[in-house]
Amino acid sequence: MTRRGLLIILSSPSGAGKTTLSRRLMEWDPTLKFSVSATTRAPRPGEADGREYYFRSREQFAQMVAAGEMLEHAEVFGNFYGTPKGPVVQAMDEGRDTLFDIDWQGGQQIRNSVLGRDVVSIFILPPSIAELERRLRGRAQDSEEVIAARMAKSEAEISHWAEYDYVLVNRDLDAAEAELRTILTAERARRERQPWLSEFVRGLNREFEAR
Amino acid sequence: MTRRGLLIILSSPSGAGKTTLSRRLMEWDPTLKFSVSATTRAPRPGEADGREYYFRSREQFAQMVAAGEMLEHAEVFGNFYGTPKGPVVQAMDEGRDTLFDIDWQGGQQIRNSVLGRDVVSIFILPPSIAELERRLRGRAQDSEEVIAARMAKSEAEISHWAEYDYVLVNRDLDAAEAELRTILTAERARRERQPWLSEFVRGLNREFEAR
Repeated sequence: MTRRGLLIILSSPSGAGKTTLSRRLMEWDPTLKFSVSATTRAPRPGEADGREYYFRSREQFAQMVAAGEMLEHAEVFGNFYGTPKGPVVQAMDEGRDTLFDIDWQGGQQIRNSVLGRDVVSIFILPPSIAELERRLRGRAQDSEEVIAARMAKSEAEISHWAEYDYVLVNRDLDAAEAELRTILTAERARRERQPWLSEFVRGLNREFEAR
Repeated sequence: MTRRGLLIILSSPSGAGKTTLSRRLMEWDPTLKFSVSATTRAPRPGEADGREYYFRSREQFAQMVAAGEMLEHAEVFGNFYGTPKGPVVQAMDEGRDTLFDIDWQGGQQIRNSVLGRDVVSIFILPPSIAELERRLRGRAQDSEEVIAARMAKSEAEISHWAEYDYVLVNRDLDAAEAELRTILTAERARRERQPWLSEFVRGLNREFEAR
């Protein structure tokens, strides 16, 4: 009997290291399934449909929402973003954990959905705002205007830190990765996530009876 | 600002390795405080008052219960056992975690006390009942009658496994110890147990305002 997969939500402001940490977690545990979001925004150079995002028209997106195919969705900077439900439910049934790289709005909706009790949510903070801005500028692919908008969004994002199960400060990638691994290992070990235990204890009871 | 200390409850049938694992955890983290129980049973050879137990008369024990000085207490094999409340509350206030090596009755009472939300409870199962009995006999200090009584108590103890946050099977001491460390590290990292986070985020907000 496999356990039901967990929904692991990672949120953070842009530049706090969430994407790098997600990639490292996926390398550490290849059974993790990364949740690819759908969006109506245009692909950036190098982005592929179905890898970074499912790129959809506004009409297609609205249709998916109407059909109940979105676990959560929200509008950010005039574009829609959402999580298709099908792949998540399939992974859960297979006993695989799904990793979500989403913002507080998505996290809030998933935590408050029917799947909420299988959520483990983690918020990643930058060591400082100066460092956050430095990392954002280091990418050198966004305009000054976009960076200003991202910094404003970061402030709003950080205001939701207290809604998460765990909060960690990414001062050092290796330390943050180790902390994430520890959290996942412990959360998976919780009694209600070990469905084989019932049968194991029944075995012990049969041994007692046979003495 | 220090966090409030956790109450870490380890329960298991006699012979499942709980005492050895407790000792190893105390060596791993010397800030852990071991909760010494009070009992009305007679000391065994080698046991010292205040180390293995606080050895008390029935009158003294009843007085402590009446004065509300016991966090939990129960009767087992005609003797009383209980946890003095004072040292636990003091450790919590100092931000130190307390380790409890107690049975399901004690665990149930502490979980359902006012301190319940700071409890992390872990049940340790033996790999088999044959192995449990082998370990009990290996101690070679108990009579056949006492062993029979302990085996019966073990069966009752195991029946309460599903009341614990975590359940682990002690097939290998090193692996079980590593699992315990992971659980403690993750539980300590939970957001509500990191009181410095509020001030840290206020600092980030001040940085946003100063931009």
